Amino acid sequence: MKLATYRDGSRDGQLVVVSRDLALAHYATGIADRLQQVLDDWSFLSPQLQDLYESLNQGKARHAFPFDPAQCMAPLPRAYQWADGSAYINHVELVRLARNAEVPANYYTEPLMYQGGSDDFLGPMDDVPVPSEDFGIDFEAEVAAVTGDVPMGSTPDQALDGIRLVMIANDVSLRNLIPDELAKSFGFFQSKPATAFGPVAVTLDELGDAWDKGRLHLTLQSTWNGRTVGMCDAGKEMTFHFGQLIAHICKTRNVRAGSIVGSGTVSNRATEVNGKKEWTKGYSCIAEKRAIETILDGKPSTAYMKFGDTIRIEMKGRDGQSVFGAIDQKMVALPAAGRARARSANAAATAGPGAPQPETQAPPPAGET
Amino acid sequence: MKLATYRDGSRDGQLVVVSRDLALAHYATGIADRLQQVLDDWSFLSPQLQDLYESLNQGKARHAFPFDPAQCMAPLPRAYQWADGSAYINHVELVRLARNAEVPANYYTEPLMYQGGSDDFLGPMDDVPVPSEDFGIDFEAEVAAVTGDVPMGSTPDQALDGIRLVMIANDVSLRNLIPDELAKSFGFFQSKPATAFGPVAVTLDELGDAWDKGRLHLTLQSTWNGRTVGMCDAGKEMTFHFGQLIAHICKTRNVRAGSIVGSGTVSNRATEVNGKKEWTKGYSCIAEKRAIETILDGKPSTAYMKFGDTIRIEMKGRDGQSVFGAIDQKMVALPAAGRARARSANAAATAGPGAPQPETQAPPPAGET
Repeated sequence: MKLATYRDGSRDGQLVVVSRDLALAHYATGIADRLQQVLDDWSFLSPQLQDLYESLNQGKARHAFPFDPAQCMAPLPRAYQWADGSAYINHVELVRLARNAEVPANYYTEPLMYQGGSDDFLGPMDDVPVPSEDFGIDFEAEVAAVTGDVPMGSTPDQALDGIRLVMIANDVSLRNLIPDELAKSFGFFQSKPATAFGPVAVTLDELGDAWDKGRLHLTLQSTWNGRTVGMCDAGKEMTFHFGQLIAHICKTRNVRAGSIVGSGTVSNRATEVNGKKEWTKGYSCIAEKRAIETILDGKPSTAYMKFGDTIRIEMKGRDGQSVFGAIDQKMVALPAAGRARARSANAAATAGPGAPQPETQAPPPAGET
Repeated sequence: MKLATYRDGSRDGQLVVVSRDLALAHYATGIADRLQQVLDDWSFLSPQLQDLYESLNQGKARHAFPFDPAQCMAPLPRAYQWADGSAYINHVELVRLARNAEVPANYYTEPLMYQGGSDDFLGPMDDVPVPSEDFGIDFEAEVAAVTGDVPMGSTPDQALDGIRLVMIANDVSLRNLIPDELAKSFGFFQSKPATAFGPVAVTLDELGDAWDKGRLHLTLQSTWNGRTVGMCDAGKEMTFHFGQLIAHICKTRNVRAGSIVGSGTVSNRATEVNGKKEWTKGYSCIAEKRAIETILDGKPSTAYMKFGDTIRIEMKGRDGQSVFGAIDQKMVALPAAGRARARSANAAATAGPGAPQPETQAPPPAGET
């Protein structure tokens, strides 16, 4: 089944079931209000949602309405965990080759992962507010899994059984802030603003054969300012599958329901064309394009994103239909976004004091960042 | 006021109001079931809880019962963010001096922070399950702030206004896993198992003058196996106050309600006694003790914790009363803890399929970790 979260002025939105073709939606009212509830009590609630999903696909759901991805928050608008891997070792190899650094041997045996912020995700069509273009704005097209409970010490195979849903993500990165943060070795922080997720989260049965033991064998398309720059195969070159990524977290702690685990930038190897390396699949983040340019020409020539730039990320099934709907976002300067957030907080405040609502605070001064 | 979360078999527990002297408690039923709800809608709900708190302190609350910290989960049993700083630069200086490494200049102007896992916190008296003693088990006694919404670009002063509650924490660390993780520069992951928090979270007015512009001027006591090893002043040597820590996160993203921000290990400078350096305040983590031993004797002599070891962390007010109640935990081997978790999941399952409950999975094999 396919699940989404509709904006309703609250922090967690309203759970909707979406038809397979993404044409229709139906509120899950009476079953569950929020996706986290479903993940907390999956065996009891998911069969009820599945029944509604089947009625919806058959055109028999009573209160169906046209599905509009612009009304979507992230399927989990906030989560208890966002752990992102760097599961395509080709991405690491390229970036390191560009700066003449070797890939440490243990990168091939143990996944590289970082803990991300999960309190404030972006919806698929939300603007991406950034304080300055000078931070080096980049997109990162990824696949992400949402888990149930996976106990400490689980094996990669056991961890695979804990996967409940799959999504696509735009793990926005601020490249020019990364070197200083990595130099401190405490991981990413300011260099990783809010992550965005695609409109719907889907169960594994929706993916059919394309899902094989923790790898999703479909093409992730990235379209930057209307130009397709990436058609990357998310499957066969994923060095560590999702079960391995989750088991990595589980080594010393439990992974609890609603945890989101990312694949890292989807990345494919070069092919030899007339004796020369060509990256025919394109790229899922600009940093990788710049790494390739540096390898070929000694320096990068593609600039990072500017305010007003758009990025569209989508994945189609073997039937050519969009599986998750599209992430389609615009990069914007922070002050504008700050004003938008303040407006939406004010709007929510009119709903009455008892309604869950964002707290209102003045937007920060433009010069503050 | 003082707030705690009682275990009830659900993932988020039941919110209780606790009297100032920690003697009595009262369910917050009718106001809010869970602490996150209160943080989501602070201006509406906190005055109602404050009224109940005052009745409780005056002995007028109708259904008060004796407060038992053994029934407590963490005040937020899971949270949307756990961001931990290293705000006491003395700690960083000691650890670096022990390995003859300089402290980079920007460590004095910009806080060092890492993003922690927040999906599975431990209660104040929960055992700490660790797969192996060889991982180098250490406690870290800290102070932590819980925030409301703090928008991107907020200044440290604005961020101070976003603090709703203060807690104490045991940020358990697995020291022998840290070097490899830091070498990868993606931050801590396996080296930071579940963090534990003290029984109650308190509002700033409870702290009186001891809370001064984002610093808590009280003594954090650490007692290891019944022996007091740390009596550290959490206030004046906190290099970066909580407003600065929160503003650091806010540089490129919003901090949303219910985010927990940690101080890092509380640490005090040595004093000169007869011309020699003496660390009279003791230590809030064993790694620091070992650093001091290395500086003085060329090598560490204090071993990390063993299974069965206990750690008690507490902070007393100027009136000598415990402010937050005590963290009092035992380190245990994972298989035993795994069995305990499976039992508690089975117990919850008897509550009926509709009740929120942990999903049941077999404990992992002992050899798996």
